[in-house]
Amino acid sequence: MTKPKALVLLSGGQDSTTCLAIALKAFPNQVEAIGFNYGQRHLAELKAAEKIARIAQIPFKVLDLSLLGQITHNALTSKEIKIEQNQGQLPSTFVDGRNMVFLLFAAIYAKNKNIKNIYIGACQTDYSGYPDCRDEFIKSANQTLNLAMDYEFKIITPLMWLTKAEEIKLMQLLGNLAWYQHTLTCYEGINPPCGICPACKLRAKGFQEANISDPLLINSNKF
Amino acid sequence: MTKPKALVLLSGGQDSTTCLAIALKAFPNQVEAIGFNYGQRHLAELKAAEKIARIAQIPFKVLDLSLLGQITHNALTSKEIKIEQNQGQLPSTFVDGRNMVFLLFAAIYAKNKNIKNIYIGACQTDYSGYPDCRDEFIKSANQTLNLAMDYEFKIITPLMWLTKAEEIKLMQLLGNLAWYQHTLTCYEGINPPCGICPACKLRAKGFQEANISDPLLINSNKF
Repeated sequence: MTKPKALVLLSGGQDSTTCLAIALKAFPNQVEAIGFNYGQRHLAELKAAEKIARIAQIPFKVLDLSLLGQITHNALTSKEIKIEQNQGQLPSTFVDGRNMVFLLFAAIYAKNKNIKNIYIGACQTDYSGYPDCRDEFIKSANQTLNLAMDYEFKIITPLMWLTKAEEIKLMQLLGNLAWYQHTLTCYEGINPPCGICPACKLRAKGFQEANISDPLLINSNKF
Repeated sequence: MTKPKALVLLSGGQDSTTCLAIALKAFPNQVEAIGFNYGQRHLAELKAAEKIARIAQIPFKVLDLSLLGQITHNALTSKEIKIEQNQGQLPSTFVDGRNMVFLLFAAIYAKNKNIKNIYIGACQTDYSGYPDCRDEFIKSANQTLNLAMDYEFKIITPLMWLTKAEEIKLMQLLGNLAWYQHTLTCYEGINPPCGICPACKLRAKGFQEANISDPLLINSNKF
């Protein structure tokens, strides 16, 4: 690989995988990815990210942030909390400050490699109630990181204002739709997916609106 | 202790110890402190912080951030790099993003305890070249953390515009000057201090200007 120019936060989900495809079009052969182990329930997420990085032929680094699971309690890191979404409250899957932790460590890692472009799949369109997915937060975080390290990071959020359907159509256009076969969306962390959790429903709705079949389900009898 | 209201970032140095004294005047019996193990050269720092917390009779939590030492290289975490200060360059003691990492984990920890007030001893007066000590950075970080977690943190920096001499005189006024006896300032991590590193020189200058004897040196024959 030539000198790296962009770092993608890769979780193994659909959004970060789309970001990776977009980054690779902008910086061919100059993309790296980073993932985080923070005590999340499903290490399957990291396995999916590893597989996608292998297919995309890019270096993938996993940082251990298990500390995060020790100082915060929520349904994504604790098996004892039920996944729920109640109106007017933060979803029980919210890990306080998670995207800021990811962006901060990604930025420190990137600066040490002289990388300025950081891709993250944050999206405000299908707003899920996570405050750290909002455009306002991302812009503030970008400014804070630049001030913290006296460095000109560019946090790039190509999905911020896309619908799921638009994202899927874009992925098809980029020629990387097949990558979705290896992504993990389901909160239950299973493949074939449960089909009933909020994440599965949002994914299914996107493919339906895009009028495209989900590569993840083509070989599954579940749907 | 009654319900905690304030969290102090306590490193065992002079500035954070002064912050602790100030926080305790504002919130008597409602202060906790947090420290970080990030692979710094001198665990003596954390020992000093523990001792000061014991004297102040407050809970003290240490978070393990040794990851930071793994992804960044500098003179505070590596014994192979010499401590230097060159004009126009960041000091070799700069750990990229360190104050942001501290503030972020302090904020996550604070929110989980319903604490909104976070004290940090950042100071721009004797500007040392650390970008993440500047007021502009702190204000930006405050806004970013509030957006990240949808919470009203107040990052309080009582030392931001004080000189070292003013800080020392304030500590005397608060009646906690003796706490300085247990603080660790020297980059060499030794007690009695080396007296020649930039940190020792800055400290000595402050006491001289305040016309107050450093409690750390009263029982030492070195000076």
